[in-house]
Amino acid sequence: MKAAILMGSKNDYPVVERAEGVLKAFGVGYETRIISAHRTPSVAEAFSKGAEAEGIEVIIAAAGKAAHLAGVIAANTPLPIIGLPIKSSTLDGLDSLLSVVQMPKGIPVATVAIDGAENAALLAVQIMSGKHPELREAMRKYKQDMEQEIILADKEFQEGKE
Amino acid sequence: MKAAILMGSKNDYPVVERAEGVLKAFGVGYETRIISAHRTPSVAEAFSKGAEAEGIEVIIAAAGKAAHLAGVIAANTPLPIIGLPIKSSTLDGLDSLLSVVQMPKGIPVATVAIDGAENAALLAVQIMSGKHPELREAMRKYKQDMEQEIILADKEFQEGKE
Amino acid sequence: MKAAILMGSKNDYPVVERAEGVLKAFGVGYETRIISAHRTPSVAEAFSKGAEAEGIEVIIAAAGKAAHLAGVIAANTPLPIIGLPIKSSTLDGLDSLLSVVQMPKGIPVATVAIDGAENAALLAVQIMSGKHPELREAMRKYKQDMEQEIILADKEFQEGKE
Amino acid sequence: MKAAILMGSKNDYPVVERAEGVLKAFGVGYETRIISAHRTPSVAEAFSKGAEAEGIEVIIAAAGKAAHLAGVIAANTPLPIIGLPIKSSTLDGLDSLLSVVQMPKGIPVATVAIDGAENAALLAVQIMSGKHPELREAMRKYKQDMEQEIILADKEFQEGKE
Amino acid sequence: MKAAILMGSKNDYPVVERAEGVLKAFGVGYETRIISAHRTPSVAEAFSKGAEAEGIEVIIAAAGKAAHLAGVIAANTPLPIIGLPIKSSTLDGLDSLLSVVQMPKGIPVATVAIDGAENAALLAVQIMSGKHPELREAMRKYKQDMEQEIILADKEFQEGKE
Amino acid sequence: MKAAILMGSKNDYPVVERAEGVLKAFGVGYETRIISAHRTPSVAEAFSKGAEAEGIEVIIAAAGKAAHLAGVIAANTPLPIIGLPIKSSTLDGLDSLLSVVQMPKGIPVATVAIDGAENAALLAVQIMSGKHPELREAMRKYKQDMEQEIILADKEFQEGKE
Amino acid sequence: MKAAILMGSKNDYPVVERAEGVLKAFGVGYETRIISAHRTPSVAEAFSKGAEAEGIEVIIAAAGKAAHLAGVIAANTPLPIIGLPIKSSTLDGLDSLLSVVQMPKGIPVATVAIDGAENAALLAVQIMSGKHPELREAMRKYKQDMEQEIILADKEFQEGKE
Amino acid sequence: MKAAILMGSKNDYPVVERAEGVLKAFGVGYETRIISAHRTPSVAEAFSKGAEAEGIEVIIAAAGKAAHLAGVIAANTPLPIIGLPIKSSTLDGLDSLLSVVQMPKGIPVATVAIDGAENAALLAVQIMSGKHPELREAMRKYKQDMEQEIILADKEFQEGKE
Repeated sequence: MKAAILMGSKNDYPVVERAEGVLKAFGVGYETRIISAHRTPSVAEAFSKGAEAEGIEVIIAAAGKAAHLAGVIAANTPLPIIGLPIKSSTLDGLDSLLSVVQMPKGIPVATVAIDGAENAALLAVQIMSGKHPELREAMRKYKQDMEQEIILADKEFQEGKE
Repeated sequence: MKAAILMGSKNDYPVVERAEGVLKAFGVGYETRIISAHRTPSVAEAFSKGAEAEGIEVIIAAAGKAAHLAGVIAANTPLPIIGLPIKSSTLDGLDSLLSVVQMPKGIPVATVAIDGAENAALLAVQIMSGKHPELREAMRKYKQDMEQEIILADKEFQEGKE
Repeated sequence: MKAAILMGSKNDYPVVERAEGVLKAFGVGYETRIISAHRTPSVAEAFSKGAEAEGIEVIIAAAGKAAHLAGVIAANTPLPIIGLPIKSSTLDGLDSLLSVVQMPKGIPVATVAIDGAENAALLAVQIMSGKHPELREAMRKYKQDMEQEIILADKEFQEGKE
Repeated sequence: MKAAILMGSKNDYPVVERAEGVLKAFGVGYETRIISAHRTPSVAEAFSKGAEAEGIEVIIAAAGKAAHLAGVIAANTPLPIIGLPIKSSTLDGLDSLLSVVQMPKGIPVATVAIDGAENAALLAVQIMSGKHPELREAMRKYKQDMEQEIILADKEFQEGKE
Repeated sequence: MKAAILMGSKNDYPVVERAEGVLKAFGVGYETRIISAHRTPSVAEAFSKGAEAEGIEVIIAAAGKAAHLAGVIAANTPLPIIGLPIKSSTLDGLDSLLSVVQMPKGIPVATVAIDGAENAALLAVQIMSGKHPELREAMRKYKQDMEQEIILADKEFQEGKE
Repeated sequence: MKAAILMGSKNDYPVVERAEGVLKAFGVGYETRIISAHRTPSVAEAFSKGAEAEGIEVIIAAAGKAAHLAGVIAANTPLPIIGLPIKSSTLDGLDSLLSVVQMPKGIPVATVAIDGAENAALLAVQIMSGKHPELREAMRKYKQDMEQEIILADKEFQEGKE
Repeated sequence: MKAAILMGSKNDYPVVERAEGVLKAFGVGYETRIISAHRTPSVAEAFSKGAEAEGIEVIIAAAGKAAHLAGVIAANTPLPIIGLPIKSSTLDGLDSLLSVVQMPKGIPVATVAIDGAENAALLAVQIMSGKHPELREAMRKYKQDMEQEIILADKEFQEGKE
Repeated sequence: MKAAILMGSKNDYPVVERAEGVLKAFGVGYETRIISAHRTPSVAEAFSKGAEAEGIEVIIAAAGKAAHLAGVIAANTPLPIIGLPIKSSTLDGLDSLLSVVQMPKGIPVATVAIDGAENAALLAVQIMSGKHPELREAMRKYKQDMEQEIILADKEFQEGKE
């Protein structure tokens, strides 16, 4: 089982890297590519058309500003596409968010929070878990662990205050 | 194969209805429920905890204003949750969008455009198509038909101008 | 007399701490808990259902981004809930503010300014002062002291300029 | 037991009226006044200074645009003040919301959603219920009724679809 | 001399039509096409790659919501691209504007006001006037006429008030 | 001839100080006061009611967040009031700007840019120059000097590039 | 004593007309002109340079969208300029407001609320009242009348409810 | 062949400099000037009226806040004007963007992203390439190089991960 992570620029990697970490933790294979909707349109097209045949099940597309990458990829494949809006140097990521999420009728992009790389990966896992029951199980465990972690943090916080 | 559509209020149905239409067209079973994160929290909890066992594969949650429904459902199930922000009477849906998409680390919600009900359903189909190859095929055809439709509209538009 | 302060993450404590300081100054007992609407939904439910019985009179819920904590707590208790939106790393707190304040009809959340922890606590004191006249008196004095403080600051500022 | 509802202009009454309906339903006495922070500052001052002595326990202040009414009232009384931002003809109520909720340190205003008149009244009831246990009980019942109403609406919706 | 006008959907034509009117008035040939970045990506690619060879000198691309059309066209041609953001049913066109104007380094889109179809066409004329001096002359005259029109409107307004 | 500068908090002084510098340069007397609409409402009222009698001709009121100071002062005096919105720690000053500029009908506040202290003072000078022709003359000279300064900067910039 | 009202387009007159009404009520002479910063730049320049000599004491400039009129006029005269942002068909007037109020250092524009025509005129009166004591007196009376009007409206509202 | 770059203040040069770099790389001559719409209106007028005669083919105008420079220049010349909104100290450049792009009907400004200096220059090259085929060729090559650069970065990134 395999996901793909695309980023519009290498500058997005410090955010994108956190998505890789999550996929790794779930044992999901992935390839991370630098592909730009505007600067390498042919690569984007070739990649999106070939992704399904290469066994990729879901694609995370990260981009900032007028963030068209997710939409452009979505145009050329029936695979589910996750859009990860990246906060750029102006407008605090609002431009990225709206460019990714406000897709016109017919071509959805599953959008997560601005710079929400971990959630992009978790969503990828949830999507893939339809076909891979072991991921569903792992996700259930992930949520339980997260719950225990907060409960423990709460407990330690209480004790620390005594 | 089955999806669920939740709406925070019956007032959201004119938008939500369009999602039903898409699911129907793809032959995906669904149940539509009125469940409120704030007014029927126990129902929300019971539903989200039991959804997987009932064979539901993906959940669309539609809500407006401080739209917590998608997040609250996501908290209690490993299933992928699609958030559909509904435009309410003030702020043009920006409050709904931010309440749905800006989820904290650990609990993703796959968000679509404000009032983007068709896209919510199409995304549900794409997500389910991992397990159900016939949906993948149907989605491919849907995209081709959509392409032909635009090409035809373009052609008729050109001819209409002559 | 007792209040509760909930925060969605330990990262919110530097802001939340200022609310504790105000409650302490007014002699109001409080417990501070790390409870997440999304990561520990059962704890959130149990806490909110049991709060009244434990003698808690008002609850301050602090959270950032798609800040559902206050609303989720409000769903399960008749107690007044104060929402404290926390500024997160993007969108300058606007997402938190809208997620907290734009609650649908039926479930109010008494919202204060973004990162307005002192005001959240002062509002808690004002709410509790209906039942506890000594808090009403203390609030009156607090306002008088604040007034004198500004008057003194003004006086010193004038003198410093001479 | 008594609340006050202030509105900056008679034009706000169609919204404010819904708050009156809720207070009436809970058996809470109220007086509704047209008081403007800017046009009748002396009346605003006199009212806010005298409110407590007149037995008023909580004040709802509704205003639009640069909505200063709630803050100005809050400056002169230790009572809890609920701010109700009114949507005006431009900016969709964002100006009202920010003018009401972003109060500086020391003077909180318990802010509800834009045009959220019912919630302003429900919050008033919750605040007064600290002192008046019958209101706490009524609020509990209100929430149960609301829950049943949604559950019934859901049921009828399901049946209507069969 | 020839321009192209692209629109993402036939629904955009009532706005786009005003651009046609301006081009006609300047004697600039044009073709108007319905081409969608997301629904007909191959057509978009083919068109943009072939535009220069067909003698098109400038392309106006109109689209709403997550408006990627202008950027996608710009990716595949060295011609200057004018982006015309269309106001859609939510967010008052802010999403369209940001999706069009906030292009990343390397691929500019010359953006005009939301729904500013006349200005899109006038900008096309100004751009083409570098090569076609008669357009430069016509633009000069257009500006003079516009000036006289306002001066006359002012004069009539003054007289109407006497 | 005399102006007054009010600030809601001593923290605003680094911005406000720049207004003092401009008034000094124009030879306009001024007093700077720390007065809070919310924390010292009586001082604010007394000051605004007495300002005209003390020979003050125009008042600059600087405040941040839900910035009510200018409006509250304007309510109690027929003098022209200049509102100076201060950028606070969240929302980049948008809250301050809207709270100052969006005044309801009847009570104008002459608003300048966020943190635009020099412009607040220049506007004060322009307003006072109606009565004091020497200020009109000084303003004319100020504008000429500013023009020469930019022309010189342009010239030096050109030369620096050779 | 005389004011000028400029509007960028005759379409702005329904709003601007309300400013005329206020000036008339105060007995302030005025001329209303259609002058566009962009379409009649020479007229704008000539007007602004000659305004002072013609006895104009203050200028109200009304414009929408990228509203440059007030700033352009302010560049060429030492007179105080009042900016009146007009709500246009998109963005709810936010573009107009920011284009008018966010003036760079050196050239202030006294900005009032979006579509706040009455306040623009009242501000003009306040500014002119420095030189014309009868306007100061009239303004004082205006405020008293406005106060009485609200007090009366409040009284009638109370009585109407009995 | 020659372009002009105008900036409203020398402070804008660190951004503007990047536009110069691009023009240099394309062998396009340029002059960079400090010209302010508000502080040197006569220089702005003289420049814009004389630009065409001096052989300038396109003008880039960079300004921040209420950024009127591009519009004011556009008013006085039939040349195409490129607006470059500069991010200033508040509002993250949104004020600049809206002031530049939302031009009224009749006077277009070709707007690029906030602080998008390279794109302003690339757009200038694209516009000039209508008349200068060598620029068209160079632009084609620029896009190919950019594509290769990204493809190489992608390749190196893949290899670096092995």
